[in-house]
Amino acid sequence: MTAPLSGVLAPVITPFKADLSPDAARLVTHCRWLLSQNCGLAVFGTNSEANSLSVDEKIALLDALVDSGLDTARMMPGTGCCAFPDTVRLTAHAVARGCGGVLMLPPFYYKSVSDEGLFRSYAEVIERVGDARLRVYLYHFPQMSQTPLSLDLIERLITAYPGTVAGIKDSSGDWSNTQAMLERFPGWGVFAGSESRLVDTMRLGGRGCISATCNINPAAIARLQAQWAGADAATQQAACNDIRQIIGRFPMIAGLKATVARLSHDPDWSRLRPPLVELTAEQSAVLASELDGCGFTMPGLGADG
Amino acid sequence: MTAPLSGVLAPVITPFKADLSPDAARLVTHCRWLLSQNCGLAVFGTNSEANSLSVDEKIALLDALVDSGLDTARMMPGTGCCAFPDTVRLTAHAVARGCGGVLMLPPFYYKSVSDEGLFRSYAEVIERVGDARLRVYLYHFPQMSQTPLSLDLIERLITAYPGTVAGIKDSSGDWSNTQAMLERFPGWGVFAGSESRLVDTMRLGGRGCISATCNINPAAIARLQAQWAGADAATQQAACNDIRQIIGRFPMIAGLKATVARLSHDPDWSRLRPPLVELTAEQSAVLASELDGCGFTMPGLGADG
Repeated sequence: MTAPLSGVLAPVITPFKADLSPDAARLVTHCRWLLSQNCGLAVFGTNSEANSLSVDEKIALLDALVDSGLDTARMMPGTGCCAFPDTVRLTAHAVARGCGGVLMLPPFYYKSVSDEGLFRSYAEVIERVGDARLRVYLYHFPQMSQTPLSLDLIERLITAYPGTVAGIKDSSGDWSNTQAMLERFPGWGVFAGSESRLVDTMRLGGRGCISATCNINPAAIARLQAQWAGADAATQQAACNDIRQIIGRFPMIAGLKATVARLSHDPDWSRLRPPLVELTAEQSAVLASELDGCGFTMPGLGADG
Repeated sequence: MTAPLSGVLAPVITPFKADLSPDAARLVTHCRWLLSQNCGLAVFGTNSEANSLSVDEKIALLDALVDSGLDTARMMPGTGCCAFPDTVRLTAHAVARGCGGVLMLPPFYYKSVSDEGLFRSYAEVIERVGDARLRVYLYHFPQMSQTPLSLDLIERLITAYPGTVAGIKDSSGDWSNTQAMLERFPGWGVFAGSESRLVDTMRLGGRGCISATCNINPAAIARLQAQWAGADAATQQAACNDIRQIIGRFPMIAGLKATVARLSHDPDWSRLRPPLVELTAEQSAVLASELDGCGFTMPGLGADG
């Protein structure tokens, strides 16, 4: 039994080739760099454009990561799709390949669904995967999924599947909600959806964070998570927040990709799949200038180890 | 060259077996009945729980319908998924099997996407399918997809792919939007998303409607569409609206399934896939009583011809 997932994970951005097919080699390189910065791999998250990838494409990418020898205990692939057979297939594959956990969106097309319907959605997947190794991290991101996970639903899932329903990523951006989860489910695996309240999250017993910004600023965020109780934590938190505030003024995924493309001297990284679009040249220039103004760097990026 | 799709189509409800797998035999029977009532087959729409089905399941169901000899010219399967490779695969299959058109949701996970991103989404699919027989009906359902299709985007798509971008289903429920489409794109294939303004839609040159209620009340709606200019149209419109208002007081898909289950004496029809749930016994009883109170019947339902 491996230790539960903890610390800091990146919802890893997904590189695409000129024909828009996923670029497994570049993804492996970026994931290896993230691990070298003490950052785990929440591949196939929102910031991975996961919902613009087919299940077959996600399985092929996950296989490439595992086959390249990266640490599966630090992997938490996103597996929640609209149709439960897709979620079952992807989740079972992640478990079979040894991933430390999976991050599971609820089905997100139908709106205003009931807690009963959401309970059945998760239960159907857990029962069909039927594997004691499965660790499900729920994914609460109401702004994007339009399908919030209530505290009562979470409690019902934890009670029905103790151990298996192992935690949650709270991307609501609502600190009172994160706080309520931490207080109601002590010792459970709560990850903040951003580093902006990471110290507060850790102080209340949280497990860490899974944050878009970890794609570009992993070492600083991982250090903050490790040293949250130290004398320097407030200063570190403020420095992390400065970087996040800069990138947050641009479309997030395009901004992350533009930054990785620029600092790894690899323009292919700036490509996105529709419906998302790349930054304009002007946006890219402003973003670069603001990050440079902070002395921001990404040491070792793009060098395949 | 077959005539373009027109008239009245049902977003056909999808039956499930006890293990929640799709029930192709029951679907064929229901589709055959709908065609006998002068109603076309918009399978894999919102009311079909299409986004709770995998691409493989949809392909298998479409094959079952086509292989059973049903008229493919009257089929408009929904093919729009979040990931364009899925949309391409399903759309290409529908074209290869001879479907009269496809109904295409935009990718619906990422929110607040740009018209440029949506244009690229549709263009990517149309270019990759690359088949002159393809007829795309756009699917505007902002309440559910949270991804509206603007008039400017529609114009750009019609201009780039004349003939191929053949029409739209407007499920906004906003008559001023339907009216604006009809006026800005005269002669184009505009379908109302419900029968509640069918006479008005036809008067302004619309093509018909694609409506949930057609699953249970197809003959009356088809007759209204054919006789919209007749002396009896207002009375017919009012009678159709009465049925729609009854069913509209319940969760739509569960209500349609409960009604088909009851009137075909086939309780298996009442099953839904999560995240949707069936009506409660009390809801079912009220719905039945209200429909019976109108003298509502479904002649010939459930009899496989």
